[in-house]
This record gives sequence, C-alpha cells and structure tokens, in this order.
Amino acid sequence: MLSDIEICRSSALLPIANVAIQAGLQDSEYHSQGQYKAKVSLDSLKRLQTNPTGKLVLVTAITPTPLGEGKTVTTIGLAQGLAKLKHSVMACIRQPSMGPVFGVKGGAAGGGYSQVAPMEELNLHLTGDIHAVTAAHNLAAAAIDARIYHEQRNGYDDFEQRSGLKALRIDPKRVVWKRVMDHNDRALRMVTIGRNEEGKTINGYEREDGFDISAASELMAVLALASNLKDLRNRIGRIVVAYDLDGAPVTTEDLQVAGAMAVSMKEAIEPTLMQTLEGVPTLIHAGPFANIAHGNSSIIADNIATRLSDFTVTEGGFGSDMGFEKACNIKAQMSGKAPDCAVIVATLRGLKANSGLYDLKPGQPIPDTLFEQDHEALKAGFENLKWHINNVNKYGIPAVVAINRFPQDSEEELLQLKAMIEMLPNNVEVAISEGFASGGEGTLDLAQKVVLQTQRKVTFTPLYRLEQTTEEKLMAVAEAGYGAASLTLSEKAKQQLAEFKKHGYDNLAVCLAKTPLSISTDGSVKGAPAHFDVPVRELKLCAGAGFIYALCGNVMTMPGLPDKPAFMNLDLDEDGHIIGLS
Amino acid sequence: MLSDIEICRSSALLPIANVAIQAGLQDSEYHSQGQYKAKVSLDSLKRLQTNPTGKLVLVTAITPTPLGEGKTVTTIGLAQGLAKLKHSVMACIRQPSMGPVFGVKGGAAGGGYSQVAPMEELNLHLTGDIHAVTAAHNLAAAAIDARIYHEQRNGYDDFEQRSGLKALRIDPKRVVWKRVMDHNDRALRMVTIGRNEEGKTINGYEREDGFDISAASELMAVLALASNLKDLRNRIGRIVVAYDLDGAPVTTEDLQVAGAMAVSMKEAIEPTLMQTLEGVPTLIHAGPFANIAHGNSSIIADNIATRLSDFTVTEGGFGSDMGFEKACNIKAQMSGKAPDCAVIVATLRGLKANSGLYDLKPGQPIPDTLFEQDHEALKAGFENLKWHINNVNKYGIPAVVAINRFPQDSEEELLQLKAMIEMLPNNVEVAISEGFASGGEGTLDLAQKVVLQTQRKVTFTPLYRLEQTTEEKLMAVAEAGYGAASLTLSEKAKQQLAEFKKHGYDNLAVCLAKTPLSISTDGSVKGAPAHFDVPVRELKLCAGAGFIYALCGNVMTMPGLPDKPAFMNLDLDEDGHIIGLS
Repeated sequence: MLSDIEICRSSALLPIANVAIQAGLQDSEYHSQGQYKAKVSLDSLKRLQTNPTGKLVLVTAITPTPLGEGKTVTTIGLAQGLAKLKHSVMACIRQPSMGPVFGVKGGAAGGGYSQVAPMEELNLHLTGDIHAVTAAHNLAAAAIDARIYHEQRNGYDDFEQRSGLKALRIDPKRVVWKRVMDHNDRALRMVTIGRNEEGKTINGYEREDGFDISAASELMAVLALASNLKDLRNRIGRIVVAYDLDGAPVTTEDLQVAGAMAVSMKEAIEPTLMQTLEGVPTLIHAGPFANIAHGNSSIIADNIATRLSDFTVTEGGFGSDMGFEKACNIKAQMSGKAPDCAVIVATLRGLKANSGLYDLKPGQPIPDTLFEQDHEALKAGFENLKWHINNVNKYGIPAVVAINRFPQDSEEELLQLKAMIEMLPNNVEVAISEGFASGGEGTLDLAQKVVLQTQRKVTFTPLYRLEQTTEEKLMAVAEAGYGAASLTLSEKAKQQLAEFKKHGYDNLAVCLAKTPLSISTDGSVKGAPAHFDVPVRELKLCAGAGFIYALCGNVMTMPGLPDKPAFMNLDLDEDGHIIGLS
Repeated sequence: MLSDIEICRSSALLPIANVAIQAGLQDSEYHSQGQYKAKVSLDSLKRLQTNPTGKLVLVTAITPTPLGEGKTVTTIGLAQGLAKLKHSVMACIRQPSMGPVFGVKGGAAGGGYSQVAPMEELNLHLTGDIHAVTAAHNLAAAAIDARIYHEQRNGYDDFEQRSGLKALRIDPKRVVWKRVMDHNDRALRMVTIGRNEEGKTINGYEREDGFDISAASELMAVLALASNLKDLRNRIGRIVVAYDLDGAPVTTEDLQVAGAMAVSMKEAIEPTLMQTLEGVPTLIHAGPFANIAHGNSSIIADNIATRLSDFTVTEGGFGSDMGFEKACNIKAQMSGKAPDCAVIVATLRGLKANSGLYDLKPGQPIPDTLFEQDHEALKAGFENLKWHINNVNKYGIPAVVAINRFPQDSEEELLQLKAMIEMLPNNVEVAISEGFASGGEGTLDLAQKVVLQTQRKVTFTPLYRLEQTTEEKLMAVAEAGYGAASLTLSEKAKQQLAEFKKHGYDNLAVCLAKTPLSISTDGSVKGAPAHFDVPVRELKLCAGAGFIYALCGNVMTMPGLPDKPAFMNLDLDEDGHIIGLS
C-alpha cells in the first residue's frame, strides 16, 4: 500500500473555492489561502444563524493504546461515508501540533484513504493559528517579566512616576503563566530565566520558569471555546497570569496586554476550510489537549458546520472518559449544542491491550502476538468497551461502535466482536469501519448506523451544572463520570479551592487532567476499573477558558523527543516535494 | 493628519490578483493568501530567467538616529513616484519582526501615504515566514538537546546499540545554536535549560543557553541569501550548531534535522506579494538584522522583481556603512547583481543629531530644539552625509540624496541643505522627498533623479573577494570600508580564526556587527570619525548563510520591552478592527 503522503499527493483535489461552494459558503464568506485552504469569515454566522442546526456526531474511543485507535481516520472516513450516502456533511477536527509531527506520533490528518488534504499543509504550519496562539501567549509572558523588571529596577514609586502606570507588584514566585513552544523540547520543561552574565545586570532578575507545548496554552482552550471575536477578547482579558504580593490575581487586562494578544489571534479565530481526499468540506480549528484542556475542536467551527450541513462529524481526544466527557460537560454547556450521537472507535488490538495482557509503548513495534486470535484477551478487554458504551449513554446520547479494521485483523475475530456488541442490552449499533483501506466506501455501514442513531431523541444530561461548587463538580466527574469510589483533594488543592472561591472563581467548569491510558488515574490499570480513588494533586485556574483543571497524577505538558525522532525521515525530494511524512 | 492605520484602512486596495497581473505574473505563478496577499511561486523564475534585468535601486541612509530616518517611507514613496512617472516598478522590503511592533519602534510598513498595505497584516503574522524560521530554528535546538540527553543517558555505546545511530558526542559546553523567539523578551537573553525539579531527572542535564529574537537566526540570513529551494536545503545542512568533544563541528546534517528544517521553511522561501497604498506591487521577504547579518531583503525577491519590472526599489538596514556595505560585499557577491543606484536618505534632524550636539534616545520624545534652525549643527552633521556619499561612490555606484521632509522642518533649512549637496564635487543628485505627506506625488523629483543616475554606467567594485583570507576581508571592511586606522582581533577572535580555517571555513564573506549609531564602533562618536580602531571581540561562524560575523562592541540580539510598551495601545474596536498600530 502507498504511504499516507503518497496517497494524498496522488489524489485529485478540488480548488478550495469549489469546496467552499459545496459547503454552502458565499464568496464573501471565505478567503482562499493558497489553492487548498481558506479562512472562513465569522461574518458567515450572521447569515447562517437562522439556519436549522444539523446533527452533531462526536467520535470518541475506547481507552486507547499509546498508538491510538484511528479516531481521526474514522472521523474522516465516516464523513466520507455519509457523503457517499448523499447526505450533506462536514467534518471538524483539531489542528495538529508540530511537536508530535516531528517527534514520535507523526501527523494527525487521518490516514490511508481517509485523510484531510493536503496532509503536509495540515500537519505543518496550516494557516498559522498555532503560531498566533504561541505569539500571543509569549507576548503575555514577556509583558510579565518586563513589568516585574521595570517595577523592581528602582522601586515601585520610581516606576509609577516614570511610567505613569500603577505598579502591579507581581510576586515573582507566583507567576503562573509559563512560556510555550510548538515543539517537543524536553530541555525547556524547567528553565531559569532572567539570568545575568557575570558582571552584567541588564537581564533583570532570575526566576524559575518553564515551557509547555503550545497546545497546552490556555489560549488554545480559549480559542476553542470562544463564540466570537468579542468573546475571545473578553476571555483573554480574564486570564490570570500571576498573583501580586498581597495574593490578589493579576490578569492580562491588568498588564494592558490583552488587546494586543487578541490582535495577534484575530485571524486565528477563523476556522480553516480544507477537504478530505473525497472532497468533503472539513473545518480545522484550534487544538487543545484532552487532559489539561477539553480536547475538542472549536465551538465556532461546529457552529458554522452544523448550520451549513445536515451532519457534522467531529472528534474528542482520547477515550470517552476524556475528550467526550469534556465535550459534554465543558464544551456543550458553553455552546448549548450537545452531540446527537457518539461513535466509539474500538480496535481488536486496542481491546486486547485493555485486557492488561500486553504492554504497548509509543515508538516501539506492536508485538505480533497482538494480532493473533486471542479470545481471552478480547473478552477481558471487552469490559472496557462496555464501560465506554455505558458512559456515552449516561449523558443520554445514542452510541455507535465503529470497529476500526487493521489489515492484520482476523475476519473471524472481527465478526465475533461485532456479535458481542450486538448482544448488549444497550440500544447500541455497531459497524466494521474500513476508512483507512477504502475511504468512504469502507464506512457505508457505519454511516447508515450513525444516521439511524441520530434519529433518536436525545435528552442530554451533563454530569454537573456550573452553579454547583467546584468540589461537587470534581466529584461528579470522578464518581458519576469515571465510576470512582472517591475523590481526594490534597492539602494544596484544598487551599487552592479556597483561594479561587475567595477571588470569585467558583462558577467555572472543571477539567480533570489524568492519564488517557486508563479510566482510572493509574495508566497501568486496564479494562473497566472500579473501587478506585481519584487523587487531585493540584488545581490550575483557567479563568479565560472558563474552567479549573485538576491534576490527577503526572500530566506531561511538554513532551520530549525520542532517540530517533520522526524528523529524521523528513526531507525535500529533487522536485521540492516533502518526503517521509506520515 | 490621520494615523498610519487610519490612512491605510481608508485607502482603496486592489484585489491581489490585479496586483499580480500588473506585476506581470501569470495565474499559476502565485497563490492568493486572503484578499491582499499572495505567495509568489519560485516556478515563475523558470519563465522569467531569460527576461532582461531591470535596474536595482538600493535605499540606504546617513548614520541614523535611534528613531530612524524614514528609509522605508522613502523606499515605498520612491516606488510610487517612479510608478507615477509611468515606469514599471516593484518594491522589495524585509518582513518586520513582531518584537519591535509590540515593543518600542512600532510597525515597519513605511508611514503616512507611503505604506505597504494592509499595514496590520505586514506588521503581524503576514504569511507566517518568520514563524516558519522560528519553528525550523527551534526544531534544531530541540534536536541538539534531545541528542545530548539520549547519548548521555546510558553512555554512547548504549545509545548506538539502542538507536542504530552513531553517537555525535556533542560537547554541551560548546553548543553554538541558541533558541529564538519573535518577541522582545529580555528575560530570555540568558537562561539555564534542562533543569530538574527536585527529585526528578527526566529533564536531562542543565546547561547555559539563551534566546535571540527570530530575525537574528542564521536561518533568516539563509532565507535571504538562498537562490532556490535546493540551495536553501543545502545551506541549512551546512549550519554548524555545536562542536563535539574533539572540537570538530557538528552540523544540522549530522543531526539529521536539516531536511525537516527545510520542510518547515518550504513555504517561507516564496516571497509575499502585497501592494503600496498607490498599488505598486511589493515583495516582502525575509528580515535579517543589519548587524549580525546582512540586513537586506532576499535575493529571490530581487531576482523576481528585477525580471518583472524596469525598476526595483529595495532597502538595506541602517546607514551605508551597515546594510549597504553588506548588500554590496555579501549579497551582491552571492547574487551576481549589484545595485545600479543608491538613494541616501538624510533628514535635517538626523544630520543635526550627527553633529553630536543632541542626544536622542529611542522611546523618548525628540527635543523641540532639534527642529529649530541651527546652521552650526547642520554643518557639523553634514560631514556624515558627505561620508556616506563617498562611501557609496567607493563601490562605483551612483548616489541620490533623498532629503526626507518632516512636517516641522523649515523650508529655508531644507533648501540650504539641498544647496550644500549640489555644491559637492561628486556626481551626486539630490531631491527633497515628501513620500510621507504626499505619497508618489511627493517623490516625483526624487524619482526623476533616480532614473537619471541609473543611466550611468556602473563599475561595481566590492571591497574584497571571497578568496582572500578572513583577516584580509575583515580589514578591508574596517579600513577601506569604514575608514578606520586599524582592526584589532582579540585573542579569542584569533583563536577562532585559526579554528575556522582548520575546519575549512576560509572562503566565506565577512559581516561586521557593530553599532549603527556611528560609522565607528563607538555609538557616541558622531559625524565622520577618522583614526579609530575596530576592535573585534569575537567571531561567529554562519556556514549556512555563508559568512563569518565579527562582534565589534556589544550587539544586542534580544531586545527588551520598555516601561510602557507599544502593545499597551493595541486592541480591537467594536467592529473587530485593529486600533493603536503605527
């Protein structure tokens, strides 16, 4: 079989203007960015706001292996399948970070015959939105350190007289806004900044700091959750970047940098229109993580797509305990639009890995034994799938299981799994999905099942309401959501809760940051764990995004490069084409 | 008078396709990026290579004040003036860094009625080229630290067995590739990276590092000097990022990251087409500094523009001792195309400041006295202008002085200055230039004088040939170029010279990094200094760019933000338009 980039390059793509017309956009509502990309103007929403809202299909997954279960392939494949059934359809996905593209994981454009194209443009700079987020984020960081430096240089009084500004008296030990970079750069996780060369003092004062990958920026979550430019501007202004010497929060508005940050993100707020290999219009917008943020494509993109098409297919990061939970409790509560159907992606290898009998690691080859028939492992891992089906139903949302087929899978075992799902008491549908090998032709059954399930009446039930206390909301996700026996706040987390409440931050959503490799907070516990505790180590306030996130275990916000990073394969050929991208 | 952004927004702009047609590009040779920008494909050069080459006009300046003398205004104004005279003309300028836009200086799109439009797009992300340079640069940095980390983790043998790669044995104390960011961020000048949180060792090893502003990246110079994509790829591979434990250079090619860096810059190699307020096609490409790099727009942009138009107007950073010198000795020797005429921008205030009687500082208001008639100061400062005229003539290039008029200037003094220039024995022409206030109408006289001077025969004479020794080349710039009495290499610089030679780096150009505020290396020495020494503290090898740069005095490669940064004025208005950008 051809590589992803070979398939992508050998496909005939439509000029983006044709894709825009097909999507139902008018000429003035988009701006082409080269041949195959366009920025969609938010003015389009003014015209579209009275349109009926189409069905929103959210693709989620079982508890994934570190290799992923093919959620984006299924999302794009399903969109193509729905188009083949003559439905009007769009896909909405997140913009991939360049860190993983150059690091371990490779691209995130889907794969095989279910890709967003041109995949190299999607996987690299696209239309610069992540760069704009990075620039806005680091501008605030520079503003913080410059302000501390100038205020401390000759004292606060001198600063106020010199500048005519009020001193903010930021506590250098309580700056909570790190810097970001869109790379996997382990060496930047913890840094000391403001160092002085021997004998020089021009660089200010030293303090401990660190870099996150750009997708972990609160601004990325802000971009994904904003409803329009004004809302973006206001959310940015609410971001707390530090505390002053009295313990009061300091915002970007206090630093008078919120306006410039919004200016930097003015174009990023427009979703990027692309197409799948079969010409389905696809919006790419924002790329928040699914642990420390809510892990879904943007509200704005969904809003445009659902008003243009009968079906919008989108995806949430990791399993249904992660991106799907946050799509329901954070995103849907902010947007007012709940998913009409959830597609749960399952794979034979993923379910067997959920038996706990295999140990898969990213960057290492999959053991051959995982593709051999193993009924015991499948049966054990099936508990995990059942958990995710029940989880989706818990929110009142109908489910379809998409068994994403890999070439090595045995037909017999696939049918066995399908039969096991069909035996379940839930009103769940199931289809074998072959989007990778066959594009939309490979997802026709899945698409039909999805159409069926979206005809059901949805009584959407989030796990909590924003008016509840933060502690109640955290417990709701842990207990009603994960099925944990308890949630335990550390002393630090308790103090933080009290502090946030004191400063008026008690009506925010909650976002639990935990390992995606288990439903529990321990990545080694596979299947469908019960009787576990969710220990909350620390809380982080994201007042701009509108949630408090809870660190449950170690969550890495700056990945590292492996021994042999993916970038080693990348180059330009004699004709200037990119090679080695997958 | 209206602000720059108000003038820009109230001007009727042409759709970029019309600008492209006017420039002589064919449909397949550009890709629109929104309404007013387009990327110009390098394929255009295949068709154009047999076209005759138009005249290249390089705008330079007297020794500038920290406020600048209006070189970009004159460049854009002159291009508009030439267009009004019915000549076919294009302008080529550098992409502004966002650091100064948010910091002190503001935008760099020209000003008044001589601007590149839309100025907010030029001044912010444009088409993402600086972001692409930043991403490629920092990818190499992450690759270096990841490689050191993995090689040291369990020793070189273990690394080689595990990865199948040869250990590079990079000396962590001899990494010469810093990280970059497109912000004025003082706190990042010197940082300690790879720090470990107490009890954790996942972050690797500590080492001292720092950030430069992105415009200072060698990749920016590489982009500006490359002749095509293949040359870009090869230059990137030659970049020396570190030395190993035996003192041998380690390149990006050794790290196997050069291909991925070129992939990241694949779109950045295409110049961005925009227009001036009067519709003159303008190419924006690359933005290297004029001290540690050569400070001129790209060879590729010049190459396209000179083959499309009869006149190409471009500019070199700072005074003629800086950007112009490097345009002649570095850029023209690489491109094979020397300027046909130089325009020296002079201002009354700038010449008076060159008397040494005034002390101007960036970010502080200009003393009113500078605009009062002061014949003594003007006469003293005039020596500086004479120096720059002689300097331009030294290379065999005809000169035109453009007296850039400010609203406060006295008519009498302007005419006095004009008369003084007309009395000079050189074949120099002079015109008063009012591009800021009147656009092309204000530069008609200047444009006529430029046409006149470009009809002279040019016998271009660079100061050195690449075959000379590095020391000879450095002395040529200092003595024949600046008129210094001597050049003194520090012990460190001497050792470095020997080391570079040993590794075969002796046929490169030289690039002297010194203050732009004096012809000498001491910024407080104004006018036309003589009998001075040029002390070289340290050398830096830029094997990819193709030059060795010599640090003569302190050169700041990461600016800081002032008390009240320009970003405080920036915001979005009710309609989502950017306000406060100048």
